[in-house]
Amino acid sequence: MLTVGIDIGGTKIAGGVVDADGVIVEKLRVDTPADARALADAVVDMARHLSDGHEIGGIGVAAAGFISKDRSTVIHAPNIDWHEEPLRDILQDRLRMPVTIENDANAAGWAEYRFGAGRGFGDMVMLTLGTGVGGAIVVGGELFRGGHGIAAELGHMRFIRDGLPCGCGQNGCLEQYASGRALQRAANDIADQPGIGDALAAVRAEKGQIPGPAVSRLVLAGDAGATEALRRVATALGEACGGFQAVLDPEVFVIGGGVAQLGEDLLGPVRLAYETSLPGFGERPVAEFAIAQLVNDAGIIGVADLAAVNG
Amino acid sequence: MLTVGIDIGGTKIAGGVVDADGVIVEKLRVDTPADARALADAVVDMARHLSDGHEIGGIGVAAAGFISKDRSTVIHAPNIDWHEEPLRDILQDRLRMPVTIENDANAAGWAEYRFGAGRGFGDMVMLTLGTGVGGAIVVGGELFRGGHGIAAELGHMRFIRDGLPCGCGQNGCLEQYASGRALQRAANDIADQPGIGDALAAVRAEKGQIPGPAVSRLVLAGDAGATEALRRVATALGEACGGFQAVLDPEVFVIGGGVAQLGEDLLGPVRLAYETSLPGFGERPVAEFAIAQLVNDAGIIGVADLAAVNG
Repeated sequence: MLTVGIDIGGTKIAGGVVDADGVIVEKLRVDTPADARALADAVVDMARHLSDGHEIGGIGVAAAGFISKDRSTVIHAPNIDWHEEPLRDILQDRLRMPVTIENDANAAGWAEYRFGAGRGFGDMVMLTLGTGVGGAIVVGGELFRGGHGIAAELGHMRFIRDGLPCGCGQNGCLEQYASGRALQRAANDIADQPGIGDALAAVRAEKGQIPGPAVSRLVLAGDAGATEALRRVATALGEACGGFQAVLDPEVFVIGGGVAQLGEDLLGPVRLAYETSLPGFGERPVAEFAIAQLVNDAGIIGVADLAAVNG
Repeated sequence: MLTVGIDIGGTKIAGGVVDADGVIVEKLRVDTPADARALADAVVDMARHLSDGHEIGGIGVAAAGFISKDRSTVIHAPNIDWHEEPLRDILQDRLRMPVTIENDANAAGWAEYRFGAGRGFGDMVMLTLGTGVGGAIVVGGELFRGGHGIAAELGHMRFIRDGLPCGCGQNGCLEQYASGRALQRAANDIADQPGIGDALAAVRAEKGQIPGPAVSRLVLAGDAGATEALRRVATALGEACGGFQAVLDPEVFVIGGGVAQLGEDLLGPVRLAYETSLPGFGERPVAEFAIAQLVNDAGIIGVADLAAVNG
């Protein structure tokens, strides 16, 4: 069965027609409108365009935010003016087709579990390092959604008490220490140190800031400052995974997001920090670490696959 | 169906014959032998004594430690010399009856979920404040055991980076801040402060230490020092629950252990710290807090009920 998956991001809406093997057979991208009504129109338009010429069994829509346990309602979305928005029924009425809505990090995690780095495992934790940190948990082959539907907000586990302020209203959240933005912050700190920070400082002088991809390029070129910035982020991530192991005991951690394209340069220091942070290390089975494989398409593929299950 | 539940504690082995409603119809207690072989003998003896004169469908045995995912093997136990011990088969061979083994905190959590404070909820997190902090997670009506069987070690979630050393080999674990022992430590600190600490200091002068029940009595009597000691522990617990909410999103937190007998005196400051630590507070459903109801019998009842399911 073919289904449509649509992933509403902060700047782009990306959608695709996805087959039963998680392969995207047609794809579209548009800018994300700022207005909530225009956004819903854009999603409906994209779903209609993608459905045209295909036999579609259902539509999946992923967005950042809290989705109700019955998957009908967006309780709260950080970037869109949706509060207790009955999005599933609104879209179903307009599209006259079964619609599945899902949190974007859950959708991406589900894609990795079904078709990517989590394949073959039963219990997976995924952390996506972007502007923030997205989380998804798969338990015994199912997405773990919690009692109200909004579990797995792993980026908002407190990492440092009285730590850096976070957009969620708290402080010290993991995403302030282990995200793409945290990597940029670390790079900026190191750029202030003559010697080790020279290459990073040169990037900053040229571009006015230090973009994440520039840090990655310097890591691959062997620059000590960029490597130290990465080590700080990887260490925070690994320490946090030690704690998640105590609570969730996954078989595998899948790490996604732009920083994850560094592969073993990232996973090496992550594993080191994980093992040194693991309660009862040496007495317990440990988890594997893997880099996400579906990268930018994970949200589309995951929510399309969830729509296939519901369709 | 009647089953036998046996809970191996650090100082006592407690066992009972339990009916389908979670009611203990007969009960036994013996000291815990130090030697692993004598301990197994004591469990077998107790199971035989309790089975005598009842029609028993199965035996459940709960102990502190890591139990394998297939519930056959004690991977590691902190207080008993068991390493990769195939305890289920050893006991089944000797007792010629189905045997179920379970982590003691999981067993206690299951009892509260089935017959106590967690009844009627689907997703529950239980924290038992004893010498350490025991954890149990129920998800959609089932114990959450993780990929290797050893999830829900909630007391070993890191609470303070570079914090107090813990018996698990790590530092800063929650159980160093939110256990019965943490309450005693807080009481000792406050006893050193003239004025607010006078009543606690008087207890310490008389008994050489400040037992947990003495702190509780002083709290009930309105002593400011004991109340402050409790507030510190309750605040740590509530903050940690804010993080567990982000990850696990339970409908209810059930708090057990000796300190929990203080009821609302404990839960009041726990709730306050929880709400002020919750990412996205005001935008999301929150959990209820409840005091455990089965107290010392939870382990027996829980593991007996798990044996009934397996028997």
